Amino acid sequence: MGSGFETIRLLGDGVELIDQRLLPGRLEYIHTRDWRELVQAIKGMAIRGAPALGVAAAFALVLAAREGAAGVSGSRAAGPEGGAGGGPAPAEPSARAAVEAAVREAAQAVRASRPTARNLFWAVERMLRAAEAFAEPSAAGLVRRLEAEAQAVLEEDVAGNRRIGEFGRDLISDGDGVLTHCNAGALATGGYGTALGVIRAAFEQGKRFRVFVDETRPLLQGARLTAWELVQEGIPAILITDNMAAHFMAQGAIDLAVVGADRIAANGDTANKIGTYGVAVLAREHGIPFYVAAPFSTVDLSLKSGREIVIEERGPEEVTTVAGCQVAPTGVLVHNPAFDVTPARYISAIITDRGLVRPPLGENLKRLAQAG
Amino acid sequence: MGSGFETIRLLGDGVELIDQRLLPGRLEYIHTRDWRELVQAIKGMAIRGAPALGVAAAFALVLAAREGAAGVSGSRAAGPEGGAGGGPAPAEPSARAAVEAAVREAAQAVRASRPTARNLFWAVERMLRAAEAFAEPSAAGLVRRLEAEAQAVLEEDVAGNRRIGEFGRDLISDGDGVLTHCNAGALATGGYGTALGVIRAAFEQGKRFRVFVDETRPLLQGARLTAWELVQEGIPAILITDNMAAHFMAQGAIDLAVVGADRIAANGDTANKIGTYGVAVLAREHGIPFYVAAPFSTVDLSLKSGREIVIEERGPEEVTTVAGCQVAPTGVLVHNPAFDVTPARYISAIITDRGLVRPPLGENLKRLAQAG
Repeated sequence: MGSGFETIRLLGDGVELIDQRLLPGRLEYIHTRDWRELVQAIKGMAIRGAPALGVAAAFALVLAAREGAAGVSGSRAAGPEGGAGGGPAPAEPSARAAVEAAVREAAQAVRASRPTARNLFWAVERMLRAAEAFAEPSAAGLVRRLEAEAQAVLEEDVAGNRRIGEFGRDLISDGDGVLTHCNAGALATGGYGTALGVIRAAFEQGKRFRVFVDETRPLLQGARLTAWELVQEGIPAILITDNMAAHFMAQGAIDLAVVGADRIAANGDTANKIGTYGVAVLAREHGIPFYVAAPFSTVDLSLKSGREIVIEERGPEEVTTVAGCQVAPTGVLVHNPAFDVTPARYISAIITDRGLVRPPLGENLKRLAQAG
Repeated sequence: MGSGFETIRLLGDGVELIDQRLLPGRLEYIHTRDWRELVQAIKGMAIRGAPALGVAAAFALVLAAREGAAGVSGSRAAGPEGGAGGGPAPAEPSARAAVEAAVREAAQAVRASRPTARNLFWAVERMLRAAEAFAEPSAAGLVRRLEAEAQAVLEEDVAGNRRIGEFGRDLISDGDGVLTHCNAGALATGGYGTALGVIRAAFEQGKRFRVFVDETRPLLQGARLTAWELVQEGIPAILITDNMAAHFMAQGAIDLAVVGADRIAANGDTANKIGTYGVAVLAREHGIPFYVAAPFSTVDLSLKSGREIVIEERGPEEVTTVAGCQVAPTGVLVHNPAFDVTPARYISAIITDRGLVRPPLGENLKRLAQAG
C-alpha cells in the first residue's frame, strides 16, 4: 500500500505532477512538455521536498532532451533528410549535439532554481553522467537513455523510501506520540516518503500511534500536505502550530521526532525546512530522540559541515500574507530563510536507504559511503 | 512616545475599544454600553492581553452598574417616586441592591469568559471589594465609585507599564537584537505595554536596536499587532515565523528575549501565549537572557506552581483556517492550547512595576508582595 496518488510521473507526452500549492483544497495536476514550465513549478513550489526535486530535475532534463531532438528533427523535416545510404547519416551527430545542448541548458536552469536541496543537484549530475556515458551517435537513443535514467531515479527513490521505512519502523512503538515537521511524505519524494515512510511502515506493521503534525509556516506544508497524506491513510494525526511542540513535549505527549532532510553535510549536520533546528533543540531538552530520514543521495560529502550549506532566502510575501490575505502591516521588514541547519550533535540517528546511521554521524556516514 | 492610540476607554455613554481582530488592515473601534457585548469582545479576542483584559473586566462591571441603576430608575419612573420627606428614600436601598446584583451577574460572566489571564480575575475582585467598601446607600454614588475604580485600574496599569519600562530598559543595549513573542504592547494593556513598554523605554533613551517579532500563530498577534505598534513608533522590526527564532539565535542575531505574562505562580512559573515556553528553552540553549515583563497584579500567590494554572483550549478553526481560508484537510484533529507554562528556571528575571525580580524568583516575588 503506497500513497494512493502519484506525486510526479513521466509520460510519453510530457510530465504530470500534483500542484501541491492547491492542496488540501484541490487535487489538481500540472501537465507540461516544456522543461521551462517544470523549472517554474520547482521555483514556485508546485513540487517541493528534496527527493521529489531530484525526480523533477531528472524529468526536466528528459523534456529538454525531447525538445532538443524534436527541434532538430523539426528543422530537418524542412530541410533535406539524411542520406538514403546505410552509413551513419551526416545529420545524426548534430542531432545528438542539439539534444546535449538542450540538456545542458536545462541543467543550468534547474541548478539555479533552488539552492538547498542536495538531491536536485545530485539528479542533474547523474543525468549528465548518463548522457556522457552514452556512446552511440543516435539522438533518439540518447533521449531514450535519459528517459530510462530519469525513470530509474524515480523508481529507486520509491524503493529507497521503502527501505528507509524498514530501517526506521522499529523506532516507533505502539502508543507513541510522533512529531514531524514540514512534509517528508509521498508528496516530497517519488512516493511513500522518508519521514512519513518510516511512519507508514510502522503503521503497516499494525502499530497504532498518533502523529503530531507541525503546520510548518510559512507555507504550511505540514497542515496542507502532511495532514492530508495522513488523513488519506487513516493514520491518526493531530495538527498543531509550530510553537506548540515544546508544550506537548513538556506534557509527555511526544515520544520521538522524525523529519526529512534537504542536504546532509559530511559530519551529519542537516539542512531541513526552517523550524527543524528548533524541534531538535527542544527534543534534546526533553530527552526525546530526534531522527532524520533521508535517502543517501541527500548526503553531500563535499561539505565538511552545515556551515557550508547554502540556505535559500525566499520572498517576504510568504510571511506577510497567508492564503492571499495580508496579515502584517505594510513597512515591516521580514526575514524568510527557507531552511535551517541542525548540528549533528542534536541528531539521534539518520535513517537512510542504506541503513540506520548512529553517532558519530560523520564517521558512520563515511563508512556507509565507502561501502555503497 | 505614548502609543498614539487608545486601546480601550470608558466614556459617559459606554466603552470604546479597538477591534484588534481587524488590525493591521483596519483600525476600527467597538462602542458599546452593554456589558454582555464587552464580554463577547473578550471571548472573541477583539481585546486581549492580560492587563488589557483586567481593564476591560473593570469596565464591564461599570457598564453593568450603570445598567442596574438605569433599570431600577427606569422601573421607578413608572412607579411611585421616593417620599418627598428629607429621610432616606425607601426605594434607595433596593436601587443599590439592583446595581450590586447587576455587577455580580456581570462579574460571573467576566470570570467565565477566559480562564488564564490573572489580571481579569484580579480586576473583578478589586471592583467587587470597592463596591463592598462603599458604605453609602446611593445607587448613583456606587456607580460613580465603580467608575472611579475602573478608571484607576486603567491609569495605574499605564503608570505601572511606564515603571516596568524604566526598570527594564537597561537590559537592552545599543545594537541589540531583541526577540518578542505575541503582543505585550499598548494593545495588550491600558497603554504603553509591558514587554513592548521595556522596548519603548529603551528606544526613548535613544538606543537603537532591532526587534525580532514572532508572528505568533494561530492568531498572529505578533504579525498583526506587535509589528503594527512597532512600525507606528518607527522602531525597527523584523517579522519572522515562530519556527525561525532558533535559527536566528544560532546565527547570533538575538541578544535577549522579552515577553509578557498572563499569570505568574508564586514560584515564578509563568503562563503566557503558546510558544513562549519554546522561546525560553531555545534562549537558554543559546545563552540568551529571557525576561518576562508584567505588572505585579499578574502574580497569583494562591498558585504554588505553574502546574496549577488553568490553560485555555480554544477552537480548532483558529489552527485550520487563516484569514478565513481553510489551510488543513477536513478530518484532521487539532490541539489548540492558547497558553503554555514556562518554568521559573528558564526565566532570567521578571520585570514588574515594583522592580526587577531576579532568581530565586519564588523567594523574591514573596518579598516584593510583602513589601507592596
